[in-house]
Order: sequence, then structure tokens, then C-alpha cells
Amino acid sequence: MENTESMKTIDPRRVVVACSGGIDSTVTLASLLNRKFEVHPVSFVYPSKHNGWEVEAARKVCEHYGLKQHVVDLTEAFESIQSDLLVTGGKIPEGHYQAENMRNTVVPGRNGIFISVMAGIAQSIGYSHIAIGVHQGDHHIYPDCRPNFINAMAEAIHYQSEGKTYLIAPILTLDKKGIVALGLDLKVPFRLTRTCYKDQYIACGKCGSCQERLEAFELNGAVDPIQYA
Amino acid sequence: MENTESMKTIDPRRVVVACSGGIDSTVTLASLLNRKFEVHPVSFVYPSKHNGWEVEAARKVCEHYGLKQHVVDLTEAFESIQSDLLVTGGKIPEGHYQAENMRNTVVPGRNGIFISVMAGIAQSIGYSHIAIGVHQGDHHIYPDCRPNFINAMAEAIHYQSEGKTYLIAPILTLDKKGIVALGLDLKVPFRLTRTCYKDQYIACGKCGSCQERLEAFELNGAVDPIQYA
Repeated sequence: MENTESMKTIDPRRVVVACSGGIDSTVTLASLLNRKFEVHPVSFVYPSKHNGWEVEAARKVCEHYGLKQHVVDLTEAFESIQSDLLVTGGKIPEGHYQAENMRNTVVPGRNGIFISVMAGIAQSIGYSHIAIGVHQGDHHIYPDCRPNFINAMAEAIHYQSEGKTYLIAPILTLDKKGIVALGLDLKVPFRLTRTCYKDQYIACGKCGSCQERLEAFELNGAVDPIQYA
Repeated sequence: MENTESMKTIDPRRVVVACSGGIDSTVTLASLLNRKFEVHPVSFVYPSKHNGWEVEAARKVCEHYGLKQHVVDLTEAFESIQSDLLVTGGKIPEGHYQAENMRNTVVPGRNGIFISVMAGIAQSIGYSHIAIGVHQGDHHIYPDCRPNFINAMAEAIHYQSEGKTYLIAPILTLDKKGIVALGLDLKVPFRLTRTCYKDQYIACGKCGSCQERLEAFELNGAVDPIQYA
């Protein structure tokens, strides 16, 4: 008993989670709820082509879990940042996610900004953890999804919070197949999630992001419940 | 000659600098210009009580050096962050800067957010460095001004940019006396800078920030050229 009480004091297990309405962040959120974390979901408004659909999908996911979505508007923060993923950038490439042309969809500084804002919120509301759904499938293309970056940010946040805030990445070592498998186990409402990079309500099925998702369901012998164009 | 040319390729020495119109960031900027960096000054709009005066002072400093000020609005990004330095917080404490009550002026996540946004901008515009004017005098109160935090962020930015962007903190080891001394050497236009934490045009002379500034000039046997209430 004493041990449990002391754990409560040291580790309140309350987590601010980045919630984009995609598979990765939804499985991250579900896995933290499953581990009995108290969850504060944050969705970021930023000028990506698919952001409107993303924040709406995230809202539905939060609603499913009975959580209140906290929306933070970073439109101005991203105003001077250049990427084909953003409304000011070029066309979203089609084809496989691992292909070199997908590099144009890197948004410089994105996860650093998301993590830093979440750290500020966690410290302000007295939460012990922040979590982000970066994973192995993104390591090839996105430098700010790799373990070395996440570890350095975790260290930075440890120092800036004087040891009060921990950055965790619960699905860091999983690939998309493993994430879908975990999500199926946790009965994640995949029908509410959205993955497509394009600015349209129905997923295109052709962009790297859609292809990777479809492949992950297939590898699990499962059917993706969302609609494709 | 060959060596110089090769240095130009490896190290274009172009730097995005956080520019708040205070002494620290102005001396940082002046020292980088003195070291022949090409400088891109960024000022952040965020809901601190003194921000309006700060961005205006920074504009004058940029104008003095013939630089175009880049203003990034982070009002929404800081909306959920709590601190007595912000418009939503309590009263700014008076008294000495090193006192424990100055801790209420810590803005959780602030430098992490500033650095992350600058890193995104530097990568987007092809700049090699980002710089921030954190210094020894702030280490006691502000965790996000300490070398351990800055080093961890430098590492994170190294990884997220795949080695293309360096975070530097040129005055990291100086105290306020040393910063003013360096500024006097570099003929920094101190008359244009602003340090006070309060929401008023004329500096109060009483807040920790004003007191530290006045003390630093005195220790240099110099007179602070700005007006006090």
C-alpha cells in the first residue's frame, strides 16, 4: 500500500498527447488509456493541406474516448516554414512512402514545435508526461521522428522542467503493421481516423500515406474501414 | 585561399537570431555581425505583459543595423501556458532578480518554442545557424536558459536538420556585467533597447529585470542611456 501511495506522488501518470486523428496518434492515445494514464489530448491547427480534416478526425477520436480535445492554433508559428505538405508548398507526391520524393513532405521543425508547445502546456497544467506517436515507419523520411531526435528532446524537456516532465513515444519502435496490430488489439476506432495527405474529405488511396495505411491493414489480414476515392 | 573558399562552402555563416529588443539579444546580434555572420533577426509576438514594447524596441535595433525584422506571431501557441510574466498571470514581482519570487516569471516551454520555430525557419530559408541570447545571469531562475537545456536542444536540432543547423548561444557564459561590457565594446545602441518586465513605455526601474540592468551598467562604470520612471 505504501508503495502505491508513494508511486502516486512521484508518478501521477497524466499525459498530454498529440492527437492528429491519424492511426499513429490514435493508437498512442489508446495505449496510454490502456496503461491507465489520465489523458489530455492536444490537436494542432497548422497550415498543412490536410489539417482541416485532421483536426476534425481527431475531434471524433477524442469524442469516442470521452475526452475533451484541446485545439492549439499554430498557423502563425508555421507561416515562414516551407514544405510541400503545407498549403504554400508544391504538389504532394504520389507513390510509395519510402521513396525519395516523399522527402518534400518533411516540415522543418514540426515535431520540435509540437513537442515544445506540449511541454509548456504540461508544465502549466501540472501533467507529468507528454507523448507523441512517432514510429519506425517514419524514421527513413522524417528526421524529427527518429529516436536520436526524440531522445535529445526528452533530455531538453527534462532540463527545462527541472525533471518534472517526461517526453515519451510509446510506439517509437513499431512499424505501421505493428501499430495497426496494436490498434486492433486495443479496439481502436479506425473508422474515425484519417491518414491521407491530400486536401479532400475522402482519402485518395494514392499518396504515400494512404498506401502505407492500406498495406498495414492488409499485412494484418484486416480491412481498413474508411472509404477511399 | 583554398581554405577560405572551402570554409565558405562548409560554413556559410548565416544565422537566424532571436531579437527581443533587450540587452542580451541585442549584444548577441551585435557579436554575430561583428563575427561577419549574415543575420536574419526574428522577433516573437507572444502574450507577455511587456511584449508590445519589446517587439517595438527590437524593430528599432534592427533598423539601427539595417536589418529587416521578421515578426512571428506566437500568441495562440502560448494561449494555454501559465506564468506571471504573461497577461493571463499574476503580478510581476518587484525586488532582486535572483530572488525566489522571480520564479513566477518563468514561462514554461518558452525558449524551447522559440528555438524550435527558429530551427524550422533556418531550415526553410537555408540558414546554417540559429542563435539565442541566453546567459549566466538567467541560469539561476530560468531552466530553459541553462547550458544543459541549450546543449540538449542543440543536439535535437542537429538531428532534426540532419546536421545542417547549429544552435549557438554566443553569450551563454557571460553574466549581465560581461554582456554590458561586450556591448559597450561593440558600440551597441543601448538607448534603443528595453528590459523592463512591466506593461509601460518608461522602464519601471523596480522589477528584477530593471534592477539587474541598472546594476550591470554601474558595475561597468557606465550610465544606462534609457529613461526610468
